[in-house]
Amino acid sequence: MSSSVINFKDKLSKFSEHWSPRVVAEMNDYQFKLAKLKGEFVWHDHEDTDETFLVLSGHLIIQLRDGEIRLSEGEMYVVPKGVEHRPVAIEECHVLLIEPRNVINTGDAGGELQAENDVWV
Amino acid sequence: MSSSVINFKDKLSKFSEHWSPRVVAEMNDYQFKLAKLKGEFVWHDHEDTDETFLVLSGHLIIQLRDGEIRLSEGEMYVVPKGVEHRPVAIEECHVLLIEPRNVINTGDAGGELQAENDVWV
Repeated sequence: MSSSVINFKDKLSKFSEHWSPRVVAEMNDYQFKLAKLKGEFVWHDHEDTDETFLVLSGHLIIQLRDGEIRLSEGEMYVVPKGVEHRPVAIEECHVLLIEPRNVINTGDAGGELQAENDVWV
Repeated sequence: MSSSVINFKDKLSKFSEHWSPRVVAEMNDYQFKLAKLKGEFVWHDHEDTDETFLVLSGHLIIQLRDGEIRLSEGEMYVVPKGVEHRPVAIEECHVLLIEPRNVINTGDAGGELQAENDVWV
């Protein structure tokens, strides 16, 4: 049983790559992932699942086809399944992602920003 | 579609009751709940699911039968399903709970601290 206290700052100090989520915990068949975001991601959606963004520091814009969501520290947003979105961070932003195990960061869009899945920190 | 930005401080300003989780968002069949904790809860477990505690402010102790977990702001812990636990907060503590919809706060233990379920804020 690997359950233990997860300290976000400690875990965030262990990697620096952008757009490269690191799993820190599992709850049933869901995963909690920390990520450092900077710049513009790719437009994508997740056909089978909602996806939660919780901002730990900095500011995150989630562009939608019909508007945009602006998140700061202490705020979260659930992107509904099937809704196209593009995360954008002008300065580096740290987020906690919550979604089912095996979700790929780029959805079906692929491309050079597709990260290896299930990498723990 | 009710998805919107959730600001934790704003939502926490809207209620004061202890041990009375308020739903702020849903992700698939899971719920995000804010709660204000102070004092000693009841020993209980959740037979069918893990349960996540994420501390937003203050300090939380999660007593286990074989030890205890101490959490501060910026830390989280996943209580594995079926594991008996008792949350204790010496001073008021604010947490984000993440668990499947329909989980009762006291598990099968019941008692006067059992909160009404699915109350949104």
